[in-house]
Amino acid sequence: MVFMKAMKLQEFGKPLQLMESDLPQVLDNNVLVKVDACGVCHSDIHLAEGYYGAREEERLVIRDRRIRLPLTLGHEIAGRIEAKGRAVSAFEVGDTVVVYPWIGCGVCRACRAGFDNLCERPNALGVYADGGYAEYVLVPDPRYVLKYDGLKPEEAGVLACSGITALHALKKARVAPDDVLAIIGAGGVGGMAIQLAKALSGATIVSLDIDDRKLEYAKSLGADFTINSSKDDIGAVMKQALGKRANAVIDFVGSTQTVENAVKILVKGGRLVVVGLFGGILKMQIPLLPILALDIVGSYTGTLTDLNEILQLTNRGVVKPVISTSFRLEEANEALAKLRSGEVKGRAVIKP
Amino acid sequence: MVFMKAMKLQEFGKPLQLMESDLPQVLDNNVLVKVDACGVCHSDIHLAEGYYGAREEERLVIRDRRIRLPLTLGHEIAGRIEAKGRAVSAFEVGDTVVVYPWIGCGVCRACRAGFDNLCERPNALGVYADGGYAEYVLVPDPRYVLKYDGLKPEEAGVLACSGITALHALKKARVAPDDVLAIIGAGGVGGMAIQLAKALSGATIVSLDIDDRKLEYAKSLGADFTINSSKDDIGAVMKQALGKRANAVIDFVGSTQTVENAVKILVKGGRLVVVGLFGGILKMQIPLLPILALDIVGSYTGTLTDLNEILQLTNRGVVKPVISTSFRLEEANEALAKLRSGEVKGRAVIKP
Amino acid sequence: MVFMKAMKLQEFGKPLQLMESDLPQVLDNNVLVKVDACGVCHSDIHLAEGYYGAREEERLVIRDRRIRLPLTLGHEIAGRIEAKGRAVSAFEVGDTVVVYPWIGCGVCRACRAGFDNLCERPNALGVYADGGYAEYVLVPDPRYVLKYDGLKPEEAGVLACSGITALHALKKARVAPDDVLAIIGAGGVGGMAIQLAKALSGATIVSLDIDDRKLEYAKSLGADFTINSSKDDIGAVMKQALGKRANAVIDFVGSTQTVENAVKILVKGGRLVVVGLFGGILKMQIPLLPILALDIVGSYTGTLTDLNEILQLTNRGVVKPVISTSFRLEEANEALAKLRSGEVKGRAVIKP
Amino acid sequence: MVFMKAMKLQEFGKPLQLMESDLPQVLDNNVLVKVDACGVCHSDIHLAEGYYGAREEERLVIRDRRIRLPLTLGHEIAGRIEAKGRAVSAFEVGDTVVVYPWIGCGVCRACRAGFDNLCERPNALGVYADGGYAEYVLVPDPRYVLKYDGLKPEEAGVLACSGITALHALKKARVAPDDVLAIIGAGGVGGMAIQLAKALSGATIVSLDIDDRKLEYAKSLGADFTINSSKDDIGAVMKQALGKRANAVIDFVGSTQTVENAVKILVKGGRLVVVGLFGGILKMQIPLLPILALDIVGSYTGTLTDLNEILQLTNRGVVKPVISTSFRLEEANEALAKLRSGEVKGRAVIKP
Repeated sequence: MVFMKAMKLQEFGKPLQLMESDLPQVLDNNVLVKVDACGVCHSDIHLAEGYYGAREEERLVIRDRRIRLPLTLGHEIAGRIEAKGRAVSAFEVGDTVVVYPWIGCGVCRACRAGFDNLCERPNALGVYADGGYAEYVLVPDPRYVLKYDGLKPEEAGVLACSGITALHALKKARVAPDDVLAIIGAGGVGGMAIQLAKALSGATIVSLDIDDRKLEYAKSLGADFTINSSKDDIGAVMKQALGKRANAVIDFVGSTQTVENAVKILVKGGRLVVVGLFGGILKMQIPLLPILALDIVGSYTGTLTDLNEILQLTNRGVVKPVISTSFRLEEANEALAKLRSGEVKGRAVIKP
Repeated sequence: MVFMKAMKLQEFGKPLQLMESDLPQVLDNNVLVKVDACGVCHSDIHLAEGYYGAREEERLVIRDRRIRLPLTLGHEIAGRIEAKGRAVSAFEVGDTVVVYPWIGCGVCRACRAGFDNLCERPNALGVYADGGYAEYVLVPDPRYVLKYDGLKPEEAGVLACSGITALHALKKARVAPDDVLAIIGAGGVGGMAIQLAKALSGATIVSLDIDDRKLEYAKSLGADFTINSSKDDIGAVMKQALGKRANAVIDFVGSTQTVENAVKILVKGGRLVVVGLFGGILKMQIPLLPILALDIVGSYTGTLTDLNEILQLTNRGVVKPVISTSFRLEEANEALAKLRSGEVKGRAVIKP
Repeated sequence: MVFMKAMKLQEFGKPLQLMESDLPQVLDNNVLVKVDACGVCHSDIHLAEGYYGAREEERLVIRDRRIRLPLTLGHEIAGRIEAKGRAVSAFEVGDTVVVYPWIGCGVCRACRAGFDNLCERPNALGVYADGGYAEYVLVPDPRYVLKYDGLKPEEAGVLACSGITALHALKKARVAPDDVLAIIGAGGVGGMAIQLAKALSGATIVSLDIDDRKLEYAKSLGADFTINSSKDDIGAVMKQALGKRANAVIDFVGSTQTVENAVKILVKGGRLVVVGLFGGILKMQIPLLPILALDIVGSYTGTLTDLNEILQLTNRGVVKPVISTSFRLEEANEALAKLRSGEVKGRAVIKP
Repeated sequence: MVFMKAMKLQEFGKPLQLMESDLPQVLDNNVLVKVDACGVCHSDIHLAEGYYGAREEERLVIRDRRIRLPLTLGHEIAGRIEAKGRAVSAFEVGDTVVVYPWIGCGVCRACRAGFDNLCERPNALGVYADGGYAEYVLVPDPRYVLKYDGLKPEEAGVLACSGITALHALKKARVAPDDVLAIIGAGGVGGMAIQLAKALSGATIVSLDIDDRKLEYAKSLGADFTINSSKDDIGAVMKQALGKRANAVIDFVGSTQTVENAVKILVKGGRLVVVGLFGGILKMQIPLLPILALDIVGSYTGTLTDLNEILQLTNRGVVKPVISTSFRLEEANEALAKLRSGEVKGRAVIKP
């Protein structure tokens, strides 16, 4: 019997703890992956804290999502196949793979339609089942592992959340080539969205952030225009520079302020895609929805199709992988703390 | 020179006034329609009052929409072609026609794409240009008139707003045959939506209203299930009767209460289409949008395509036209008053 | 060890043979279904014969599809769960289920996107793996079984091919409410398509067949208009009766003659969906494709989503199940022969 | 009264003739454009010759399209507004504009839905009404003129056919980022399609042509891979270089040979978009359509939306305009002759 180490959340609001356990049993259709790299996502902070929302009176408590502790966090996993069940024929032991973590029940309507990320009884790794802050992770079905090569594991793993979240949101924004697309937030996911919008949409891309260095980064990735929303009057700047409003906005922050900004700069018939989980309350005049024919669309992670697409785009160099800072498994709490305080350059990645 | 009579709004909040004017000049591409019937729409009440919203502190004032007075209201127009410009070859004087009132500038992106209802510089009849509470109405282009036969004018005119609003909203709800579709409001537009959903979607239809007689009406039109939302716990009733939540909700009221109800009964990945202009403030936890992947979609009137479709569906008997109560042109204020107080049976229609 | 009986194809062009074998081993994620009813499909005739096409010089030989013999035919399967692997939690032994037979490899792009029916390395039951002309059938994953109740097994099983084929084709026809939809072939699948078009599209439905009794059947299911294409000039009849051409045609025959007829009656921008496997050669002027902006679309079976939808529509009485004639397992060759000669009333079904 | 010169087709198969006529009368909603440049399109050769198709026995005769002579050819028009009717408010005399030539009747279903290019009673300039091989062209409605700046007239005019044809076809190909897209023909339209696919799709682009210089050009525009289809075994080359077939093919030639090649290299579920009017007969096994779930889609020019998009993409430098060779109005026959013989570098353009 082999043992494995994992960093587990045992109580909301408390640090993760290093624990040892037996390797999980590999059923006929399971794939056991040895973790080479696991990205540290902002949503891991929310999970560890147990709520979304900066202001205490507006918090959305995570217990409502029926998450059971203890839990190994981590859903941006790249690794090698260590073992597989006898019903698994499409992969070999040793294959380097990315794990699609948004695993569903397999039999609900969403799962059967290829929208595993919208499963009614989700079993997502690192959220509802043990994830990648560990030496090994058990994947219930080969459907959820995808081969990769030509990328480093820290580059590949991140695609399973940041990458597909950006791509899925972009698709929901339904951007036309003569659209103005505003992207709020120029961090890792926002930066990926800028690259994807550049490669796939033809639209004029406006990047909004409150940090000038991030806006520089946005420019380097292809943003046509940047606005520091902590300094400038967004609407006025857009009017002056572009002569028009945004046809679509993707909000990778998701705060009261960013959503309000987004609604203000949309054209009639415009679309706001909300992705970020920062938290807060949305307040708006209901008649504006029909009169302006606005769409406010929530987007959650992405599909297996999205992962396949972003893997290929990255592998072919159409989009550049996100740079990363590495941590050891035992440093997971430190990685979370540095991510929370904004000290991490690029994506924080745990390499067990 | 011929004169025409019209009921005009001269000041927000004041009664309409009967006025006489010259017949408008018919340019080469214009069509002059003699009005046989013009429906009285709830939005005419909002226009005449000058705001949306029941509670004074939450009002959305209409002056923001750049409407200029005096204005002849009325956008549900059926009539006969009285005169036409020499560039108009597709119609003959005497043709019975429905007027599509959501007329745009003709050259903006939305107009060129067939979404005249989303025009950036709209010229809608009865809103931005003189409408159908009059003996004659001038239509700027033959694009905006459609022949009808086999219907009474009061049945045909109503399709140009109620009819296409219901159809457009249903399309935005993107209902699948195994969906549960909840329709809030069982009045004229809601009733049309129930009929259309029955004919076009295959979905299980739940009708919600606060008036038991309207719910009876909903049943007679094909609703599979009704809920009186003033008496019942909506979520509990749906769970017990159907065992599931709604995949889509169309809200033909658009109040704080109805929108809140709608969000509560939606499944993950569900869609709320807001149509009604009753008014109020929407408040919701922003993270629920991405976590539940909700779409909140505003829908405003409909397209020329929608009008063509609903005309044919009604003419072929697939959906039944709405019954109506007639008023003379001079009784327009009375019609508005009775509509406001809920005394009109079916649709109020002015027959000049 | 338990034995099971099955009717197997051992050589193309020869009768099926009754064979006994061990029950298959049930792996952790497998579901073993005891067959209550298995529909006999026209494509089973093609499989048994080894080719498509009536005229010898135009045959498309099936060997090209890499089918390996011996093979148990049968893909319209309803039954009860006899046994299940330990990774299967969504079902219980004894559940009555329909089997989705268009099983894929599980890991290709199509499978991951919910289009298992378009899998690049298909494993369809009754085509590439042993199917339902047997006492038991092994289903590799719970994803591919769906519970049903309120239907007879012979009604439910047929939905897994006839039902979803009709629904999938209808979706590919993208029919609008003001369209004319022509449906070629008024047998079981065509009849199902007529019912679905009636319930889901609002379009005017024209049924074409060469058999007046089938056209009577089409009328009873909701066809607005019928044409006997062996007697009438299709284009002339449509012009006279409807005043217009078809916006979409679904061809459930798929012969040279029916495809030619279809192209003739389409409007500019029209869509032809070819479903039938009768066979023959398509010949057409290539410039007609762009000049008339025609779409010629092949449609193959349907998706899991389609099966879920048609199950619910049938269960709720929105569409009526197809009537059937029963055969014992040992009578499979007789069922195929009678189907080929047109002697079967409704769908032939084997009840082992 | 002012006179204008035009090169007119008086008889199919004969040279165009220089003719003088009065300036057309400008009705209230008309726009008179002074032509600065008019592109010479391959379809002008077909019009002048009176048929499509290289082999005499397979010709498709154009008389079937109800074109009336004499006719001024030319549909790729850029110019300045010389005069406008009094109902035209969105433009000023002197504005530099591109003319959308695929003008419809304005009232049919396609026109009202924004698909003027699919009008049932088309009035396209240079095809059914006098076009741009002239000093002036009359545009019936401001809907059909679009302002441009930052481009030369010979660059802008070409977008109205080549540009939108490439963009419309690309949209019909519905290309995903992990698709392989093969583009047959690397001339002007094909080259534009390569650029657009590069900017908008993310797909791997394979360019096929029979001319190595054109393949060099394709590479310079962004093709990932090129194949000389007159020398290489297309399927074998694709398999070796890419390891996969094409998910979509756009055929800008449209001959028997190119369509056959396209069908051969498509994956299951693949899409062939036929644009080219070279001509010939398509022959294929009908059962391949359903079994392989192939879509064969004709694409004809593009919409006003497409023109707006391509204008912006070109203006913003996302795609480069096509280079051109200029001819005087009187040299129109020479331009057609050189285009037919392949002697024109880039696009031939008439500058009256």
